[in-house]
Amino acid sequence: MIVRTLEEVQAAGNEVKSDGWISRRYLLKKDGMGFSFHETIIEEGAKLEMHYKNHLESVYCAKGEGKITSLATGESWEIKPGTMYALNENDHHILEGYTEMTMLCVFNPPVTGQEKHQADGSYALVEDE
Amino acid sequence: MIVRTLEEVQAAGNEVKSDGWISRRYLLKKDGMGFSFHETIIEEGAKLEMHYKNHLESVYCAKGEGKITSLATGESWEIKPGTMYALNENDHHILEGYTEMTMLCVFNPPVTGQEKHQADGSYALVEDE
Repeated sequence: MIVRTLEEVQAAGNEVKSDGWISRRYLLKKDGMGFSFHETIIEEGAKLEMHYKNHLESVYCAKGEGKITSLATGESWEIKPGTMYALNENDHHILEGYTEMTMLCVFNPPVTGQEKHQADGSYALVEDE
Repeated sequence: MIVRTLEEVQAAGNEVKSDGWISRRYLLKKDGMGFSFHETIIEEGAKLEMHYKNHLESVYCAKGEGKITSLATGESWEIKPGTMYALNENDHHILEGYTEMTMLCVFNPPVTGQEKHQADGSYALVEDE
């Protein structure tokens, strides 16, 4: 069994901060679960364009309020605690935080933690083995 | 994109209540994400023995406090908000809620929603296609 607290994730160097968000990677590819699991803090006022062309992602809102917009269709949905969205079509999207939000994210295939956000908003696939 | 609120999950019949827990199935096998995603409420005082022999599961605590015990080793870990455990070896375990807990759970392979807890604490694999 793997057990990890937030403090342990941070101490292991698996907290990444960038412009508008903080990502705590609780489970990565090397953990062998077949998915990765992240707690992501979205800052108040953040407006993030993302497009994970190589990964499916689900995102559950535990705290805060915001909005998700599909750039394929233009459709928007309000986000509140208990709302989940799943990018089952590798959906190009914009996520906005009206307030700070705490999101729980699952990636399939799992990310390695070495990915960089590319210019097109995607993560490249990385092989770490 | 799939977007679901708690109210929509409940209205779709994807909230299951049993002895000591309530499971809200936000994503099931049919959603095609390659994993299933559930919000599970563990009741205060619950003591649940589980053994998912056919599934890997990760569990993140969003609210509440409790304890997880491995029945393979006897080792126990305290659970608080921000603690995650992953049953990467199909670990036979006991989950206890000191208080009501809100847990976010990922299953690989995804569950169909038709599984029954078996006498041995596992879920059987179910084919729904």
